[in-house]
Amino acid sequence: MPQLPPASPGMPLADVDTPALIVDLDAFERNLKRMADAVAKAGVRLRPHAKTHKSPIVGLKQMALGAVGLCCQKVSEAEVMVQGGIPDVLISNEVVGARKLDRLAALAHQARVMVAVDNPLAIEGLAAAARKAGVEIGVLVEIDVGAARCGIEPGGPAVGLAQLVAREKGLRFAGLQAYHGRAQHLRTMDERRTAIKGAIEKTRLTVDLLREAGLDCAVVGGAGTGTFELEAASGVYNELQAGSYCFMDADYARNKRADGLAFDTFEHALFVQATVMSMPIAERAVVDAGLKSFSFDSGPPGVPGFAGALYERPSDEHGSLNLTACNERPKLGDKVLLIPGHCDPTINLHDWYVGIRGMNSLAPRVESVWPVAARGAVF
Amino acid sequence: MPQLPPASPGMPLADVDTPALIVDLDAFERNLKRMADAVAKAGVRLRPHAKTHKSPIVGLKQMALGAVGLCCQKVSEAEVMVQGGIPDVLISNEVVGARKLDRLAALAHQARVMVAVDNPLAIEGLAAAARKAGVEIGVLVEIDVGAARCGIEPGGPAVGLAQLVAREKGLRFAGLQAYHGRAQHLRTMDERRTAIKGAIEKTRLTVDLLREAGLDCAVVGGAGTGTFELEAASGVYNELQAGSYCFMDADYARNKRADGLAFDTFEHALFVQATVMSMPIAERAVVDAGLKSFSFDSGPPGVPGFAGALYERPSDEHGSLNLTACNERPKLGDKVLLIPGHCDPTINLHDWYVGIRGMNSLAPRVESVWPVAARGAVF
Repeated sequence: MPQLPPASPGMPLADVDTPALIVDLDAFERNLKRMADAVAKAGVRLRPHAKTHKSPIVGLKQMALGAVGLCCQKVSEAEVMVQGGIPDVLISNEVVGARKLDRLAALAHQARVMVAVDNPLAIEGLAAAARKAGVEIGVLVEIDVGAARCGIEPGGPAVGLAQLVAREKGLRFAGLQAYHGRAQHLRTMDERRTAIKGAIEKTRLTVDLLREAGLDCAVVGGAGTGTFELEAASGVYNELQAGSYCFMDADYARNKRADGLAFDTFEHALFVQATVMSMPIAERAVVDAGLKSFSFDSGPPGVPGFAGALYERPSDEHGSLNLTACNERPKLGDKVLLIPGHCDPTINLHDWYVGIRGMNSLAPRVESVWPVAARGAVF
Repeated sequence: MPQLPPASPGMPLADVDTPALIVDLDAFERNLKRMADAVAKAGVRLRPHAKTHKSPIVGLKQMALGAVGLCCQKVSEAEVMVQGGIPDVLISNEVVGARKLDRLAALAHQARVMVAVDNPLAIEGLAAAARKAGVEIGVLVEIDVGAARCGIEPGGPAVGLAQLVAREKGLRFAGLQAYHGRAQHLRTMDERRTAIKGAIEKTRLTVDLLREAGLDCAVVGGAGTGTFELEAASGVYNELQAGSYCFMDADYARNKRADGLAFDTFEHALFVQATVMSMPIAERAVVDAGLKSFSFDSGPPGVPGFAGALYERPSDEHGSLNLTACNERPKLGDKVLLIPGHCDPTINLHDWYVGIRGMNSLAPRVESVWPVAARGAVF
């Protein structure tokens, strides 16, 4: 069973129970609009990644602003999105295993469904599941454009795989999956540009070879929040897959723009509100949010409300705010807003989003309480 | 909504969908028995920590072997345990905030409830909630015995706080919470012994001063899986709060015994089964379990089935097994068992335990599918 919601609409922010996942709705809506405007201007499509937000409510807002559908990373995640009204999902990832393939094929009865492949063996299983269910599934061939994770080699090997896809009844070759994950968090624009230049070259080469082989790429997908402007301007990518842009996190905020200033295209719209539940000494405020409320893979949360405060030494349900360098300090029982280091796996720890209207006003209030509907959708 | 279970009883282990939290039931039951025997021999009580397992089913098995109740870290966690039939819960942590205190007091109508305090302000709120609900709540004064997290200073300050508790209608002074979290993962027995020696001295001093002040400690609680033998033999602690012992994890396995060999009092009984879902080169098997299936705060998961394999570079839904040093390698589609680095926050990512009987037999099979009932109980 999910937890009871920590808030109800109308409640002041200060009354929201903790630890709670907080969305600054005004900043969130501005982020959605900024990305929608950017892709419209660049003349490319947007298919935002639902692995970030896990919410069909957020996904429908993205689609209302022009997104063509959503990316998902798992079949179970895609099921939740389709159940929530999303008509078009791409599983931008390999799917292996009979149970998952049957669920994927069944989903194609309810929505437009695409999936990535990087191996001939996977194509056989996928095609068999599609034929058994009597559906056609769109297939992107995933190429490794520099991330050294999944993906077949660009060029000839990718063309060979695409030809296998095109030959299978039940499958429709739909294009390329060409995401460079490692490039997203390279800190300088020069580093990101160099990495994405390589990805664009490999992708262009493959698109050209496919065309020569008679295979058109309806979708050339990739890009994340850290590099989307580069793929958007490439003339090769036509569908961007950014996810984090809607919320931002402390790690993306460490990226730099071309002029060396902090990356500020999007605003922090996501927080965890925590309570100071112990204050044994004046320099240490222990909060009630630790390893089960934040993912620490990209560092500790930021503490924007108290200049100089450092979140240290997380344990399962605790974190220590080191206040040594603070002039202003929270008190026992105070609630503090913390900025997650990495938004996606942090959101996945929570059952509810608490949407706040007027976050920077004198009376911030709860406007919406949304389930993190695909939390735990790892299958 | 929780995810659909990845398995059903009777199914072979190899058919369990991934990523799934797997319990080796034979090893798990041996772990429970070993701890029950150890505390019985030492003449102390066991109150295992439910923040590890989040399951009243596991808790009832611990109680059937003699545990006096469970520890919880959160009110919402305690609610799930009581709803699942646990009659006696200690929230071994500070509880701050009106909503939480009302839930705590209400729980005392259904079970025996204790909670920790480390601040006079918290006592007022707790007593008011208890009186409003018409219940009596047992209170442990938490002292800082070396962890530098929560807890009032041992000795005089703790006695002062205990006297405040004893004076409040609705509260019952029940003893001390004296857990040394930092000592649990010190690698050598010498380091752990030195740390716990200090904790024992501070606790004994406080118990003695309390007795002089006319306050008896029914409960002197603390200890974890890394140090429980030391507290058990102290003559001061009478209730041990170990949690991880039932499952173990890769980090506890890095502890050493007194003779320098690996800590082997308990066996690895917890795994995440993952699938190799991409294998772009022979030296790299990409599995379908990343930051949303494991907590990485205590390092990456171990790969016991393939000597030399290293789990590297986790991303949200992927991990790369570096197979460079392996003679035997998994193939695309194979399922691999991985040992979590840190059990508690890893379990908290999953909706289901899949219990396997005969894990090391030729035909390991699913015997039980239990909900991780208090997953996400952070309130």
